[in-house]
Amino acid sequence: MEKVKENVTSNNHDMETPKNITIKGILSLLMENIDEKDKRSVISLGMGDPSAYSCFHTTPIAQEAVVDALQSDKFNGYAPTVGLPQTRRAIADYLSRDLPYKLSSDDVFITSGCTQAIDVALAMLARPGANILLPRPCFPIYELCAAFRGLEVRHFDLLPEKGWEVDLGAVEALTDQNTVALVIINPGNPCGNVYSYQHLKEIAETAEKLNILVIADEVYGHLAFGDNPFVPMGVFGSIVPVLTLGSLSKRWIVPGWRLGWFVTTDPSGMFRKPKVVERIKKYFDILGGPATFIQAAVPSILEQTDEVFFKKTINILKQVSEICCDRIKEIPCITCTHKPQGSMAVMMKLNLSLLDDISDDIDFCFKLAKEESVIILPGTAVGLKNWLRITFAVDPKSLEEALGRLKSFCQRHTRYIY
Amino acid sequence: MEKVKENVTSNNHDMETPKNITIKGILSLLMENIDEKDKRSVISLGMGDPSAYSCFHTTPIAQEAVVDALQSDKFNGYAPTVGLPQTRRAIADYLSRDLPYKLSSDDVFITSGCTQAIDVALAMLARPGANILLPRPCFPIYELCAAFRGLEVRHFDLLPEKGWEVDLGAVEALTDQNTVALVIINPGNPCGNVYSYQHLKEIAETAEKLNILVIADEVYGHLAFGDNPFVPMGVFGSIVPVLTLGSLSKRWIVPGWRLGWFVTTDPSGMFRKPKVVERIKKYFDILGGPATFIQAAVPSILEQTDEVFFKKTINILKQVSEICCDRIKEIPCITCTHKPQGSMAVMMKLNLSLLDDISDDIDFCFKLAKEESVIILPGTAVGLKNWLRITFAVDPKSLEEALGRLKSFCQRHTRYIY
Repeated sequence: MEKVKENVTSNNHDMETPKNITIKGILSLLMENIDEKDKRSVISLGMGDPSAYSCFHTTPIAQEAVVDALQSDKFNGYAPTVGLPQTRRAIADYLSRDLPYKLSSDDVFITSGCTQAIDVALAMLARPGANILLPRPCFPIYELCAAFRGLEVRHFDLLPEKGWEVDLGAVEALTDQNTVALVIINPGNPCGNVYSYQHLKEIAETAEKLNILVIADEVYGHLAFGDNPFVPMGVFGSIVPVLTLGSLSKRWIVPGWRLGWFVTTDPSGMFRKPKVVERIKKYFDILGGPATFIQAAVPSILEQTDEVFFKKTINILKQVSEICCDRIKEIPCITCTHKPQGSMAVMMKLNLSLLDDISDDIDFCFKLAKEESVIILPGTAVGLKNWLRITFAVDPKSLEEALGRLKSFCQRHTRYIY
Repeated sequence: MEKVKENVTSNNHDMETPKNITIKGILSLLMENIDEKDKRSVISLGMGDPSAYSCFHTTPIAQEAVVDALQSDKFNGYAPTVGLPQTRRAIADYLSRDLPYKLSSDDVFITSGCTQAIDVALAMLARPGANILLPRPCFPIYELCAAFRGLEVRHFDLLPEKGWEVDLGAVEALTDQNTVALVIINPGNPCGNVYSYQHLKEIAETAEKLNILVIADEVYGHLAFGDNPFVPMGVFGSIVPVLTLGSLSKRWIVPGWRLGWFVTTDPSGMFRKPKVVERIKKYFDILGGPATFIQAAVPSILEQTDEVFFKKTINILKQVSEICCDRIKEIPCITCTHKPQGSMAVMMKLNLSLLDDISDDIDFCFKLAKEESVIILPGTAVGLKNWLRITFAVDPKSLEEALGRLKSFCQRHTRYIY
């Protein structure tokens, strides 16, 4: 039986488990660190899933559309692995509203949430020696996925002093002949940035110059509440081929429905060659994909959701993001370097020199969990040591309570200079 | 832009699209070959998805459980990537009913249909130089998945004259130090076999002797209607670690719900080492997974589905399988070498020497689609040239009609010896 063990625990490179921290991994460790004797409820500012709060409830239209599709008895069977034709069509139309050209349903591939769309993008670009440019900080699934699919990762910085814009000089310096793509997440996770039209155009032009693709993660698409409106990267698809990733998860607040998309926003057809499309289609044959009846509900969901629902979400996100920034201002050891303009999270800088007995961001978050029953993600989990990622998409009362506890915690650990 | 094109259409080994035929690929080509002028309805005996027929309708209990979970508003959010705890628990209990030991919920990982469970199994075993033993004929997703995950494939024959049993001598001859596992599909797709307790035990003993794992695809689990009862491979988990793959798709006739499982039926814990489990968990972090509310419905579905529903399905499968065998007996050029005992499909041997103008199984199926609007999968798609895979899980009337047309087709193409 020795070889069986060896086969599955072998230490050679490709069998090694990627070292990456995952958000869910670290959050569950933090949860284990909660003091059971603390009678107060645990408040998590750790994950971009506010669906449990009634103020972030999805629209009844979406729920009814899914129930109707299920009860129609027409969608218990397999869908084509790339997705139902009407679903692909509806998403093409939905995304085309914001583009200077029209997507075809052939551009759209239905995925099991944006997570699977990330895997499709990275798996389709992986080949021996290839590398991909990821932002730092970054949503960590990219790094984990690159490790499993055999893509080397290189990081360019997002610049906090410039609203977390891409360091385009770093992108140029990192790119070589084996670089296949750069990833942007806009609206930004973990930074809460929303890029301007001008900056997105510069990214497209840089990628075009360097002959690399752009992967645009727009899972937080339209969740912009600051000065910059949300501009999809696909607007610049005629400059450089863009692979657009998205889902219902955030805008409709149904991350558990696992309905996402991988879209070739590539009007010049530079990426969408027959051989590439054949490869993508075959890759979808080995993926599970989302439930057929949820796919079948998508056309109604996209066509019938009221603007009022979207506005309500934007308003509450704006409100809670402001609560977050205001309360953090009262805490000297934590700085909000850039007010969030979108998504559901923001990066805050930790000034450890003002604290007495905290060694780093991880230590900070573990002690916070223990002492205050508040969960915050250490910046290390997204690639920035001694920062914090605070998810503000929580109902206002819970957010106030959590930030109040955070303040007490920081006061208690403040270094007093005598 | 040249390098962008090159990056995505490169001809080097790892970027090449696997050559494999997929069932869905060939079925859609056959559909394109249907003569639009034929006023008769198209009947497909091509795919294991009878959900469109009212006699194969799922139980209302399953549908209600999903609607209830959705309408509870508790399951719009993310589930743990390995699955909801209550879902893992319920599947562990469900599978344990037929095992001589009890599975723990940690043994169960929830997947987006059995397709994703196949990917998990193969991806977890892939490493440079490794090979996997697949049956011939085989469900072709295995080969496609192995190609994408970089596993070399070696085929052992299933023996039609022995009820499609595994050629264990071939398994021994093919295994070397880089062989990681052998795959069995029981009840069998595409052959309709159901293996005896004794044969499964021999498979386990052979695998143990060779120090390889067994991957047991039991997506058709319990759909046995012949002499052999369905015995899960996990029964022999103490002889050799078994990775059991399954789903709600076939037994509950809801393939579109995408709810499957990857289970370590490994009571000795030879496979389930901490490092292996960590690797599996991280792999699940990059998968999309099934919808949370469908997962949440699983405990009710597994506990409450009535035996009457299962018996009804078994009875109708038995009935249509018998119709299939009886009608095929009337067609000299097609032979049923082994009466199906389970699943939804059977392999039939084509005797081309009795036909006039048919070059092979693919030619046969394309001409059949054109002339009779009947879709049958050529054996080549599952690895057996000049055989046919007939899916009999169709309502009896449609099956009679399709087999009648098949008979006319064969009569028309019969070679007359003067």
